[in-house]
Amino acid sequence: MQLLQERILKDGHLKQGHILKVDSFLNHQMDIGLFNQMGQAFYELFCDQNVTKILTIEASGIGIACIAAQYFKVPVLFAKKTQSANIDGEVYTTKVNSFTHNRTYDIIVSKRFLSSKDRVLLIDDFLAKGSALLGLCDLVQASGAYLVGAGIAIEKAFQEGGALVRQRGVRVESLAKIRAMDAEQGILFQD
Amino acid sequence: MQLLQERILKDGHLKQGHILKVDSFLNHQMDIGLFNQMGQAFYELFCDQNVTKILTIEASGIGIACIAAQYFKVPVLFAKKTQSANIDGEVYTTKVNSFTHNRTYDIIVSKRFLSSKDRVLLIDDFLAKGSALLGLCDLVQASGAYLVGAGIAIEKAFQEGGALVRQRGVRVESLAKIRAMDAEQGILFQD
Repeated sequence: MQLLQERILKDGHLKQGHILKVDSFLNHQMDIGLFNQMGQAFYELFCDQNVTKILTIEASGIGIACIAAQYFKVPVLFAKKTQSANIDGEVYTTKVNSFTHNRTYDIIVSKRFLSSKDRVLLIDDFLAKGSALLGLCDLVQASGAYLVGAGIAIEKAFQEGGALVRQRGVRVESLAKIRAMDAEQGILFQD
Repeated sequence: MQLLQERILKDGHLKQGHILKVDSFLNHQMDIGLFNQMGQAFYELFCDQNVTKILTIEASGIGIACIAAQYFKVPVLFAKKTQSANIDGEVYTTKVNSFTHNRTYDIIVSKRFLSSKDRVLLIDDFLAKGSALLGLCDLVQASGAYLVGAGIAIEKAFQEGGALVRQRGVRVESLAKIRAMDAEQGILFQD
């Protein structure tokens, strides 16, 4: 997606340790006009899949998922990162590693909101090592719902996450795929 | 807001300890059609205030804030609940108590995204004891931005948060104000 690539080049900042800061428009401050363009792009990719629900993970996936859901006209469900006193009853749960924060946490969704009748599209802002997205795949699988695929804003294609998720037979569509990035060559996209 | 009150009566569940579960449409699974109605209601309340930015707090405020932002045509900024390795540089920070989770945490926003030129509308899903909303007020005050007010989905008017925030001179508009709720009388709204 040309618009997102241009925005990454314009406003993204590289930091040490393969970190791409896009907090001015994607995951701290959020450009809702851009999110609408991204939501429309996801809809064009998955509109023939009879999606019944969008599943994302807190926190930075929620904005993109909510805007995208307007095109699909379906509810959004977000996986929570710790057991909340406000979620009782049974939950689907799995473990996710955060490499950014260097810790492991449980993610949960209430069983009431995912079932074998659902056709689920995953949405998230980043795909790097793939732990969060694999966790979401686990939750969908446990529910018996059909996993339509995953719509990702930025994929770091030089890390293993995309391959790991695709090896599970999941269709992954990333709007901007970065094949390499460093201080010398800057940010290079895959076609 | 009639639509939200009706939805609370239809799909909300009371639990012990003044907990109202609205996780089927507001803060776990999210009804984006309803969010659009709420966003429009916030716009009608604050459209003459030249809002330049919407500020919310992760996680469940983000969806409502992003949908509402489409009416105001402004970016959304969300306060993060812990120091993230992805946010460097200087931040505005304050402490917030979560009574739901029974802990205190730091919330932060990057100084790059709030300044004295901003006119900020706060958006959140719940107002009960007011700690999160007071924290957001602190961040806006620290930045020198003008605080236009706060748009809240559900206010538990029988708890002290609304009074505490309004005592600071902040305009608080809640789409559904609950004046009492318990197993005997159910959920009662303020007019």
